[in-house]
Amino acid sequence: MRYVLIMAGGSGKRLWPLSRKDMPKQLLKVLGGKSLLRIAYERLDGLVPPERVLVCTGADYAHVVAAELPELPAENILGEPEGRDSLNAVAWPAAVLARQDPEAVVAVVTADQIMHPVTAFVAALEEGFAVAESTPEALVTFGVVPTQPHTGYGYLRHGEQVAGRPEVRAVAEFKEKPDRATAEQYLASGQYWWNAGMFVWRAATLLDQLALLQPRTHDLVTALAQEPDRLAEIYPQLLKTSVDYAVMEPVAAGAGSASVVAVRLPITWHDVGGFASLAEQLPRDAAGNATQGTSVLVDAQDNLVINHAEDGRLVAVVGLSDTVIVQTPQITLVCPVSEAERIKELVAEVTVRLGLEYA
Amino acid sequence: MRYVLIMAGGSGKRLWPLSRKDMPKQLLKVLGGKSLLRIAYERLDGLVPPERVLVCTGADYAHVVAAELPELPAENILGEPEGRDSLNAVAWPAAVLARQDPEAVVAVVTADQIMHPVTAFVAALEEGFAVAESTPEALVTFGVVPTQPHTGYGYLRHGEQVAGRPEVRAVAEFKEKPDRATAEQYLASGQYWWNAGMFVWRAATLLDQLALLQPRTHDLVTALAQEPDRLAEIYPQLLKTSVDYAVMEPVAAGAGSASVVAVRLPITWHDVGGFASLAEQLPRDAAGNATQGTSVLVDAQDNLVINHAEDGRLVAVVGLSDTVIVQTPQITLVCPVSEAERIKELVAEVTVRLGLEYA
Repeated sequence: MRYVLIMAGGSGKRLWPLSRKDMPKQLLKVLGGKSLLRIAYERLDGLVPPERVLVCTGADYAHVVAAELPELPAENILGEPEGRDSLNAVAWPAAVLARQDPEAVVAVVTADQIMHPVTAFVAALEEGFAVAESTPEALVTFGVVPTQPHTGYGYLRHGEQVAGRPEVRAVAEFKEKPDRATAEQYLASGQYWWNAGMFVWRAATLLDQLALLQPRTHDLVTALAQEPDRLAEIYPQLLKTSVDYAVMEPVAAGAGSASVVAVRLPITWHDVGGFASLAEQLPRDAAGNATQGTSVLVDAQDNLVINHAEDGRLVAVVGLSDTVIVQTPQITLVCPVSEAERIKELVAEVTVRLGLEYA
Repeated sequence: MRYVLIMAGGSGKRLWPLSRKDMPKQLLKVLGGKSLLRIAYERLDGLVPPERVLVCTGADYAHVVAAELPELPAENILGEPEGRDSLNAVAWPAAVLARQDPEAVVAVVTADQIMHPVTAFVAALEEGFAVAESTPEALVTFGVVPTQPHTGYGYLRHGEQVAGRPEVRAVAEFKEKPDRATAEQYLASGQYWWNAGMFVWRAATLLDQLALLQPRTHDLVTALAQEPDRLAEIYPQLLKTSVDYAVMEPVAAGAGSASVVAVRLPITWHDVGGFASLAEQLPRDAAGNATQGTSVLVDAQDNLVINHAEDGRLVAVVGLSDTVIVQTPQITLVCPVSEAERIKELVAEVTVRLGLEYA
């Protein structure tokens, strides 16, 4: 049967102080009052019933995820005791599903992006399922056609079209985030897609590749699926690495026993990784300011002002441009939009200086 | 006898949100935990006993002034029902003092500035008293030797030295705040001092000039001194103007029956009118940031960060320069240092938008 696994593991420190230790990015309700997780769930549009939707998230967030997605059975929310990168976040659910349904085919989707149109997203997932069902050894990934020489995404070089499937191509090679010149070359060549970080595979096929390429992880997640009580013991022993490094790249290069293909994902794709990209998703006034909550701006341009103070405290601004101001009950953040990617540094400094761990 | 009148009437909107309707600039404890008013009082250094120190302030602030200067008898705090500019803030106390002491000599000092050294300030006041005592028709003002072509101060053109008093000169003319070119000309000429907005005069002499130049105001403040209960009735009838316009300038030009002289005030003189000038008075870190309250700054230069939130809310900044951030329990202000003079516009907008009157 078909399953969908929503990956909701990242902490999203670049959206601090909206995101915090107990409030990851995917659960923030900053876009029309809906969380990215809820948007990701609704984007599935009934592709599989809720009983077959799983979420892999941090154990600290599991109760918030459950409240955000009340349609899901509690056991479908897999809470990682600690973040161990994406390999384990897909391998553990694969082991769980393979044990209960040897024919399980799993689509792994992200909750970090806004995608339009949703129908194209769903159609691509359907195609991914069809490929994995008809070609059991396939590991399916997804490629977004680049619209700009983005240096913040990984790329994949696509090869020959799969016979009879105009939207599906072999993957010749995965590429790390490129520098600007390389990204421009990728864009000009027409041979590269952005690596969407989404997958479809038969759970058994993924586990087979793990048995070949990462046998220790294979054995540990298989044991964990059999004995869930050993979670706290087993999880810290897992190799902390990405599924791209551990599986997709070696298999694309000819290791393992599977093949890697990519389904073209004909969508516009907006990462909501930081405040600059969040601002792009929010409505703006005539002067380019995006605001949430109570604020008064005089002669201000292209600012992002989010006031979640909850106590009626006003944000007041005069003569200011291109600045991020975020106010929560605990923190007031101010930084230039152009420096917003450096908020991780600030979180680290706050941790050191005030003993607040990502507060 | 000698008296000192501390003028503490201004609201100081350029320091909003630290200053507010019920917290004028002079009462803010932003400099070493002392208010500008307390600093102004202590700067007198016992020149007159506390029983002969008066404060003219807004009626709304009178109780806060009393708490800040517990040495003063309650009746020495004159609370204006509404701001009527500086003429009435000096004329009313003059009428009160002349009634109880016909020989009263009053020094009028401001509470808006930081002055160094205090000994020079006190010596100049002593000289002002000596001039007013020995020359009953003199209206004494004070002039600071300009160190830059400041366009934010009024100027006075000084004339001949008063015989036997090397620090005292006749005042040939008062000048309004000049434009830049004029200010540079004043500075180059060596003939101009900054008008310190401080005075010494015999109360009776000031009232005599008023009787000639502003007879209605004279009669009203004299009546008010006799019948203090008529305060609410009389005050709104007073002409709203400055003592410079109404008295000093006409007398210097030959009207009235007195003379205007200026005592040189050999001090450095820092107006604390806005955040830019406040920042100059505060200690700074190696990167030029002045901070009060809890904040964490990463790669930040030349900012003024004042966190008076009282609830432990942190101000966190990364990659930011030349910005004012002020957080109070009600308001978070963000503006470039270079735009801080425009905070009045922001206060006006907040008033309109939220119905908060200078909140």
